[in-house]
Amino acid sequence: MTDLERVRSALREQRIETPSWAYANSGTRFKVFTQPGVPRTAYEKIDDAAQVHKFTGVAPTVALHIPWDRVDDYADLADHARAQGVGLGAINSNVFQDDDYKLGSVTNPDPGIRRKAIGHLLECVDIMDQTGSADLKLWFSDGLNYPGQDNLRARQDRMAEALHEVYDRLGEHQRMLLEYKLFEPAFYATDVPDWGTAYAHCLELGPKAQVVIDTGHHAPGTNIEFIVAFLLRAGKLGAFDFNSRFYADDDLMVGAADPFQLFRIMHEIVLGDALSPSAGIAFMLDQCHNIEPKIPAIIRSVLNVQEATAKALLVDTDALATAQRDGDVLAANAILMDAYNTDVRPLLAELRADMGLDPDPSAAYKRSGYGERIVRERVGGEAAGWGA
Amino acid sequence: MTDLERVRSALREQRIETPSWAYANSGTRFKVFTQPGVPRTAYEKIDDAAQVHKFTGVAPTVALHIPWDRVDDYADLADHARAQGVGLGAINSNVFQDDDYKLGSVTNPDPGIRRKAIGHLLECVDIMDQTGSADLKLWFSDGLNYPGQDNLRARQDRMAEALHEVYDRLGEHQRMLLEYKLFEPAFYATDVPDWGTAYAHCLELGPKAQVVIDTGHHAPGTNIEFIVAFLLRAGKLGAFDFNSRFYADDDLMVGAADPFQLFRIMHEIVLGDALSPSAGIAFMLDQCHNIEPKIPAIIRSVLNVQEATAKALLVDTDALATAQRDGDVLAANAILMDAYNTDVRPLLAELRADMGLDPDPSAAYKRSGYGERIVRERVGGEAAGWGA
Amino acid sequence: MTDLERVRSALREQRIETPSWAYANSGTRFKVFTQPGVPRTAYEKIDDAAQVHKFTGVAPTVALHIPWDRVDDYADLADHARAQGVGLGAINSNVFQDDDYKLGSVTNPDPGIRRKAIGHLLECVDIMDQTGSADLKLWFSDGLNYPGQDNLRARQDRMAEALHEVYDRLGEHQRMLLEYKLFEPAFYATDVPDWGTAYAHCLELGPKAQVVIDTGHHAPGTNIEFIVAFLLRAGKLGAFDFNSRFYADDDLMVGAADPFQLFRIMHEIVLGDALSPSAGIAFMLDQCHNIEPKIPAIIRSVLNVQEATAKALLVDTDALATAQRDGDVLAANAILMDAYNTDVRPLLAELRADMGLDPDPSAAYKRSGYGERIVRERVGGEAAGWGA
Amino acid sequence: MTDLERVRSALREQRIETPSWAYANSGTRFKVFTQPGVPRTAYEKIDDAAQVHKFTGVAPTVALHIPWDRVDDYADLADHARAQGVGLGAINSNVFQDDDYKLGSVTNPDPGIRRKAIGHLLECVDIMDQTGSADLKLWFSDGLNYPGQDNLRARQDRMAEALHEVYDRLGEHQRMLLEYKLFEPAFYATDVPDWGTAYAHCLELGPKAQVVIDTGHHAPGTNIEFIVAFLLRAGKLGAFDFNSRFYADDDLMVGAADPFQLFRIMHEIVLGDALSPSAGIAFMLDQCHNIEPKIPAIIRSVLNVQEATAKALLVDTDALATAQRDGDVLAANAILMDAYNTDVRPLLAELRADMGLDPDPSAAYKRSGYGERIVRERVGGEAAGWGA
Repeated sequence: MTDLERVRSALREQRIETPSWAYANSGTRFKVFTQPGVPRTAYEKIDDAAQVHKFTGVAPTVALHIPWDRVDDYADLADHARAQGVGLGAINSNVFQDDDYKLGSVTNPDPGIRRKAIGHLLECVDIMDQTGSADLKLWFSDGLNYPGQDNLRARQDRMAEALHEVYDRLGEHQRMLLEYKLFEPAFYATDVPDWGTAYAHCLELGPKAQVVIDTGHHAPGTNIEFIVAFLLRAGKLGAFDFNSRFYADDDLMVGAADPFQLFRIMHEIVLGDALSPSAGIAFMLDQCHNIEPKIPAIIRSVLNVQEATAKALLVDTDALATAQRDGDVLAANAILMDAYNTDVRPLLAELRADMGLDPDPSAAYKRSGYGERIVRERVGGEAAGWGA
Repeated sequence: MTDLERVRSALREQRIETPSWAYANSGTRFKVFTQPGVPRTAYEKIDDAAQVHKFTGVAPTVALHIPWDRVDDYADLADHARAQGVGLGAINSNVFQDDDYKLGSVTNPDPGIRRKAIGHLLECVDIMDQTGSADLKLWFSDGLNYPGQDNLRARQDRMAEALHEVYDRLGEHQRMLLEYKLFEPAFYATDVPDWGTAYAHCLELGPKAQVVIDTGHHAPGTNIEFIVAFLLRAGKLGAFDFNSRFYADDDLMVGAADPFQLFRIMHEIVLGDALSPSAGIAFMLDQCHNIEPKIPAIIRSVLNVQEATAKALLVDTDALATAQRDGDVLAANAILMDAYNTDVRPLLAELRADMGLDPDPSAAYKRSGYGERIVRERVGGEAAGWGA
Repeated sequence: MTDLERVRSALREQRIETPSWAYANSGTRFKVFTQPGVPRTAYEKIDDAAQVHKFTGVAPTVALHIPWDRVDDYADLADHARAQGVGLGAINSNVFQDDDYKLGSVTNPDPGIRRKAIGHLLECVDIMDQTGSADLKLWFSDGLNYPGQDNLRARQDRMAEALHEVYDRLGEHQRMLLEYKLFEPAFYATDVPDWGTAYAHCLELGPKAQVVIDTGHHAPGTNIEFIVAFLLRAGKLGAFDFNSRFYADDDLMVGAADPFQLFRIMHEIVLGDALSPSAGIAFMLDQCHNIEPKIPAIIRSVLNVQEATAKALLVDTDALATAQRDGDVLAANAILMDAYNTDVRPLLAELRADMGLDPDPSAAYKRSGYGERIVRERVGGEAAGWGA
Repeated sequence: MTDLERVRSALREQRIETPSWAYANSGTRFKVFTQPGVPRTAYEKIDDAAQVHKFTGVAPTVALHIPWDRVDDYADLADHARAQGVGLGAINSNVFQDDDYKLGSVTNPDPGIRRKAIGHLLECVDIMDQTGSADLKLWFSDGLNYPGQDNLRARQDRMAEALHEVYDRLGEHQRMLLEYKLFEPAFYATDVPDWGTAYAHCLELGPKAQVVIDTGHHAPGTNIEFIVAFLLRAGKLGAFDFNSRFYADDDLMVGAADPFQLFRIMHEIVLGDALSPSAGIAFMLDQCHNIEPKIPAIIRSVLNVQEATAKALLVDTDALATAQRDGDVLAANAILMDAYNTDVRPLLAELRADMGLDPDPSAAYKRSGYGERIVRERVGGEAAGWGA
């Protein structure tokens, strides 16, 4: 296989999961600007996700968020997805929107509330059994706004206890993906604030627990690709939540703020032989399209990941290894930059044509009239948002 | 007048303005946790603010937010306030919550939307005429989420144009207070992101335009007291929005995150002879009490400002100036720290007793039963929040 | 003129100034790793800079640093430069390396030290008269390590006084470029910490005072291209010190850390019609090549600026303005990204061939043998560094 | 034992280790301002450290830095220390100042250089055998300035290999303390950048490997006391390097930048029962006194740690636990702040009197004339700095 064939083959089998909630309304604490045509049900979110896959060819699954995507019959929802050409992906739990969770969920000082939160997590595993999802994604908003508000260490004990109970409930082919986040909505201390905390818990739990890297969840100055490389080496990288940020957890389209960073991350993925679905890393988007139309923004995000991946695959790793071994700083950096500076859009257009897709997914989607159709048809009912 | 008399006298005339919206529900984009007893109208917000003044003695005015506090008869609202022992303070405009403002208000590329936004600002001046408020506080959420989204420079032209029109409408004893903010809700670029931008606009506008420092609106590593000193020197410091933050614009109780920073800010105020109401600096709170009870949290915030001020007043400025002139780094720092390390709570308790107040405002408020009463009485109607 | 001709013409007249000190040894507080072949005199620095111009064709001037580049006869140094095909550029003052400056230079509490520092700045203008340099670049390390160490406001008075005296000494065609920096070497407060402070001083001084943007001197999260756009609008942008940084003032090769940011900056320059030498903006490098060979790193940096500029010139500004006017967020962003994602290396290679240069400056320099020659010849004497 | 007796007893047995290099000259990359009277030898550094202990009573050991403190006869050095009333503490290795280490020490791509670096670390254990030191403190400057410069993952393999070899060499009562640091001198990636990395390596190594928290080595927004609590819970906190910072690794006097943070850290220490020497946590200073006199600054730092500790000991932990259990956010925070706002200087003055010390160590040191004496006596020779 020539190098270019290897690149194409890798791109062809790349898989990016889109999140159901990115198709719904979102905003900031100041305002949610609603958009016309936004889905009202989990079924409609899946319809929209199917469009993204139809035009990009690399987004065959949709992540669900419980309770936002709660339905009576998950098997039926899975059937619906299949009929649209996509599948259901990770189940995302939500223990941050009930009034009970004001002071935390699984780390709440009140044992009754902890019990309720754990119950929800276990329910999510039940749902996985029905949807056939392999991944339970856990993000906890738990934390403190004020010094002294609660005992930091006791909260870790409670976190460990909850995680253990849920871990023990996982089926043979299911795993737990633990996300970390520096801050927001808790401002003073977050109970899983960084990769080290997530890693330590996952290590204690066992092989079915792995870390999720959300690219927007780090302190300024953090080298994210270092974390990627470290977790890959330790066998503890489970998934990505891709998005981009300038300052905080902005949840902008991935690759929009720092495309070079995205490339460096994908470079570590390629180096670590972790791109192929067989490596078991879930590449998911987790974004909010507050002011731009949802479906086109998600298509753009998928293309951004593809472009960064293509560039990463083009790195001349043999030459790079040689320059690194020789301590030739400038040559090593130049080899990396050569790949980054390549315009990979023609290569991807060609690949899409080979796959029977339109070479320009954004334009093809626009021409399809789907956007206008949903605006016309989705009238009445309540547009989905973060609350439903 | 002895030194201690000078300190007491300064503390006695200190004035802190509380914001009507801090008494209402607030939260993050993830969840607004509602609280029982929260006001439903501007009148009830003023009732709550009056409690804060009743127990602290230094919070005699309430800032309003339009349209959240829109009433039919502002003179009646002012009468109501007076009857409760407080007055109406600054009028805060709001050009960030209409659907039209998705891409900006006064800097929106659409001239019709700019016109609407300017119209609202002019309406706020009308309201000032009715309430007798001297200060128009302007905060703009205007900005961009994505590079290229709009023309940065053209937006400055539009900003300048809007500010000029509003400036020209100000009455003789009215002024415009221009706030800046690093980020949020816009993530890539904000149209008034830093004090330099606010200062440049205010300078161009004239003497009735001054800068507002919100202590939570800076990039990490920013020395806020430097900005205080610089703006005082330039005669362009108009007001503070006090709150505290660990990472972003957390809007926690002022003094909660970094009490030493608050002290350093008040030290510059004292050095610049800017504490007295006659200096014309408005000291306002701008906070969100997402998980703690509102009125007690605001009382605590007022006390925090008082304590920082008392410490600042205790700095031995003569000795400090001498040590500074001598280049004695350790002595100068030690003189400052001596004041900071002093426990000023006894001094403040005594002052309150002199003023006919309970020495412990938090305990006195608790004993008053007001908190329980509003929970009992404020049933039905819609609790106020950021939307109303 | 077709669009591509316009792009080529703009690139052909682009001018990038390299700094004499970047050819010398540098390092961190932990270690300066010396390199063989490093210049020992100002003359040898100019020889190296001439190599960068010889191979890139766009780096015709060298900035000097006084006293590091002090010579007996500046006219002779200028002659030497001319003979090598380059010219002398900005004069950079240095008031941070004498023992006297421990607590500051022009803002020092000691008037004698302030006088000495101002004397040095005036001497730099004398040198400009001899070298024919038009630009005096001022960077002050002045600041405080500890709260209370000195009076922040008094230091601004001293700063203003010193700047005024130097400003008054400037000749008709000379200007003052004032740099700002967030922190380092002062840790608590810096006397010119941000663009707002530099701008305010420059405004007060007059038209011959302008602001320098060093791309590594900002707090995290700062939008540098906003500052570019703002200062261009105000007519107060004088120069750039290009370099790149991941966390602090890393002084890495420009474009190495965030090439997209560099592109966004150049986009504002192009939009503001400020690229041409006639616009009067000085585009300078200010970097430290601590671990990589100096001349090749500077060539690489020049190429990085060229590539970012070429991309910025390729932005379809008409289409962009239309999308912005229409509020089409995704289209506007896509137009910008189209240019960024273009591989401009072929265009630049062609341009160089047209200019009679080797299309690959890095390879051509390598082949030239200059690097080996200076290692062989520059033995004995003392390698230049930040101290000399 | 009453509560106050418990507080006094804890303060009486507190131990703070001072670093030999803090007595020597230091600076930034811009300038090292030398001070008169600075020690010229390891013996003189110990003399100075003995003064700090003499006046504070809680600083009985001195950390050494190899090779800066290399002597012919370590037993003799230990004798000298004992004669001055102090002991030798941790041995700090140095693999960042040889020219060989330009691209790294234990992670260098060159196996010969790795071998040399490991050799130095093993030599440090040999020295520990001679000095009787129990702690080997490892800080690695290893990292990259440019993306692509070396393979991030391979460097972790090399790091693990080196640590293992050194770990295996440790004696029965010796341990390895592994420090992490976000950035500097490497700017793009550091091989042990955060607590997670240090923790993961220590966990793999075994019980004799523990993490060092340097309070200046974190990204902005990092909650350090969370890390303290987490590592205590995991039994992996080995030591502190105390100092303070406003932006980067400023190495200012501990408690100077954010005294409330220092208090919160000590609060976690007290809660975790980790203050007593028997808990095995080494409390060390690691600071640079670039512009202030060394010995007085170190005395001030020791007092700052003592004051923060006293406040932490005064927290009413029973009441705190109750308020936390009740979810009373304001009460819990108020209980913590009550302790912080207490002026503990009288308590500490009394304690010192009880211990036979002057109640005011700074004044007593000043009166002692030691400062003037060393200026007089230490003439000739070479003042110690980071290079020696």
